[in-house]
Amino acid sequence: MAVARRTSRDIRSESRLIVVRALLAAGETTRNELAEATGLSPATVSTVVGDLLKYGIAAETGLIGNGIGRPTTGLRFNADRGRVAGVYVEDKYLEATVFDAALGRLATVNASAETPVEEADDVIDWIVRILDTALDRAGAERGDLLGVGVLLPGGMQRPVKSAPTPGGIWLHLDRLRDRLGLPVVVDNPLKAIATAELWLGAGRRSGNIVTVSLGYGVGAGIVQDGAVVRGATDSAGEWGHSLLVFDGRLCQCGRKGCVEAYIGALGMRQTVAELDPGHPLLDGPDGYVFLHAFTDAAEAGDPVAVAALDRTAHYLGAALTDLVAVLNPEVIALTGWPDFPACRERVMPIVWGRIRADAPGSAAEDLEIELVGRHGMEGIAAIALERFMRDVGLVTTRVLPAL
Amino acid sequence: MAVARRTSRDIRSESRLIVVRALLAAGETTRNELAEATGLSPATVSTVVGDLLKYGIAAETGLIGNGIGRPTTGLRFNADRGRVAGVYVEDKYLEATVFDAALGRLATVNASAETPVEEADDVIDWIVRILDTALDRAGAERGDLLGVGVLLPGGMQRPVKSAPTPGGIWLHLDRLRDRLGLPVVVDNPLKAIATAELWLGAGRRSGNIVTVSLGYGVGAGIVQDGAVVRGATDSAGEWGHSLLVFDGRLCQCGRKGCVEAYIGALGMRQTVAELDPGHPLLDGPDGYVFLHAFTDAAEAGDPVAVAALDRTAHYLGAALTDLVAVLNPEVIALTGWPDFPACRERVMPIVWGRIRADAPGSAAEDLEIELVGRHGMEGIAAIALERFMRDVGLVTTRVLPAL
Ligand SMILES: [Zn+2]
Ligand SMILES: [Zn+2]
Repeated sequence: MAVARRTSRDIRSESRLIVVRALLAAGETTRNELAEATGLSPATVSTVVGDLLKYGIAAETGLIGNGIGRPTTGLRFNADRGRVAGVYVEDKYLEATVFDAALGRLATVNASAETPVEEADDVIDWIVRILDTALDRAGAERGDLLGVGVLLPGGMQRPVKSAPTPGGIWLHLDRLRDRLGLPVVVDNPLKAIATAELWLGAGRRSGNIVTVSLGYGVGAGIVQDGAVVRGATDSAGEWGHSLLVFDGRLCQCGRKGCVEAYIGALGMRQTVAELDPGHPLLDGPDGYVFLHAFTDAAEAGDPVAVAALDRTAHYLGAALTDLVAVLNPEVIALTGWPDFPACRERVMPIVWGRIRADAPGSAAEDLEIELVGRHGMEGIAAIALERFMRDVGLVTTRVLPAL
Repeated sequence: MAVARRTSRDIRSESRLIVVRALLAAGETTRNELAEATGLSPATVSTVVGDLLKYGIAAETGLIGNGIGRPTTGLRFNADRGRVAGVYVEDKYLEATVFDAALGRLATVNASAETPVEEADDVIDWIVRILDTALDRAGAERGDLLGVGVLLPGGMQRPVKSAPTPGGIWLHLDRLRDRLGLPVVVDNPLKAIATAELWLGAGRRSGNIVTVSLGYGVGAGIVQDGAVVRGATDSAGEWGHSLLVFDGRLCQCGRKGCVEAYIGALGMRQTVAELDPGHPLLDGPDGYVFLHAFTDAAEAGDPVAVAALDRTAHYLGAALTDLVAVLNPEVIALTGWPDFPACRERVMPIVWGRIRADAPGSAAEDLEIELVGRHGMEGIAAIALERFMRDVGLVTTRVLPAL
């Protein structure tokens, strides 16, 4: 068991991360504005900015005058400090995005395979090839990369492969690191999306956020007091495998009655089947294709699809109410099918109705629910950037697993 | 919405609290041992200890020699800095405990009323009378008190009065403060038990703990990264009102299918009734009396009670698995009926079986579950002590509600 120790270095590290995130959010700013934005003392901000300038994370932009008093030196995140890459890997799909050091997207390349790419060597070859292509489009070289973040759906800590992940690839990432000659971090989408929301989204105004990912699989990322909650074995956030119905539907993970078995893609398909076992939607493919076909059918007025979507919205509202009861967040950031045009107007009122009716006491009083796009790539890039800052000694965050 | 700001003062405050808790845990210690125990630098520890000495929170104990090198100055928590009181209030029951400043119990006095004490003035009179008696027994006076903590079951943020709380007393605590001429804090048992576990229990070795209270009502306290999670509206931890069964049993809170409706005292009674509507246990009183009669009947081999207890253990295991899935804690500290002699051997193996079978991936791999006594009084006293340290400027923690 890890001893809960926080050293003075951890505490300095926290101030640095707070300033880094504020600088990234601000665009061009000054030391005084950073002190205001973060609540840190001007002296602390000056020290931290000095460190960031020294390591090239921040850059000075010349004098900024506001007409009152003497001009002060502007600061910005040093986008040209280097490049950061994010790679998303499924067994038949791969995507690589190259970012500048301020997490601005420079180039994205994706590729599909006819048959699953399963051998670790083949997966590594594939990653290297697509990443090199993306670097080329971004006008960059491997040597420019401060780090590479690999996003593995259903890998690592997920109980089942909610999305098809090349078998065991995350056991062989040391080989990827050796091939690239670069630091590599790996994480799952729950943690990456939570990190993105913390760095680039609601984290700019709240420290108490839950991100909820709804797609083929279902899960949550928890931001508590300005940090992503990882848990004892890095598997916090598996809300998709918490109960909706004791002894209910068999979930892919082997447990009965999980949230995912009701509001994941397979769960919605089963809801349709329960309402109409002969419905044409059941003849089509599953996964995202089913999700789109299903929600489009509901929008077009298909009565079974409408009933199934309404029931799914009640399930979602109930499952979110559980997060509200246990964690009492300020913001829930939803990503996935509720943001489909066919769902926005139909689903969210039902979800809010459930939460308002069932959340304990005042738990939902100040709650905001946002529909946000998927930011997994930005998140894994932020994790890779944090890893770089750790390697140069600026921060002490544990970034797991360390490769 | 609160802006998630952490200032340099907050960061200093954190170091101080870490040293305060380590000092309390250590008994007699030295600056060097504190640095080792906390992972803080010797310089930081020296600065913090200087502050604690200045405010009389810590005291020096003279020179300690270990035979090697020169003797160093011993340190201890200054138990005689003053007294702290905890008060627990129900409508027909009241308890007051006086602690020294190192949270050692000096005297406890409790009192019962024949009829509910409901008028705010009467409740305040009652609290003052019993508190004065407890102070008297502890050889102390009101003027010795650094603060008073009031523990309100089912008050504050709970959706229902899971235990009978004098109506609206927490709306009138400013009058209690004025009557006593002392700072008063109020909190619910979920937060108090979590605080006690953080200060005096598993918090000494882990920063990632969930405390679970099982009695008439059911709830959780969450310790994350060494701090009690309060949530946006101070109502985090209402796991008792998260779902076990979608559209299941009607809970006292008005929601259907809550965990509490299955593993709270009323829920267990309903399980017995479902198995045998004419069972003699159903003729007796409910609440704690029922809990004891029920678990005793199970221990004596009553087949309905045995079946109902086993089913309850499955419910408990499933509901705890949800906490493991979402929060992935290192330690779950259980307080309440599972610690009854009749339950310890029968219930926990079923609970562990459920968790091992159903927890996602490796989430339960390093999990420890401890049965702990109720420490709500120690917890509310620790909160009152933290409030005192805030008032003198040593720490910046928000202690809610501030009176
Ligand atoms: Zn599952
Ligand atoms: Zn309830």
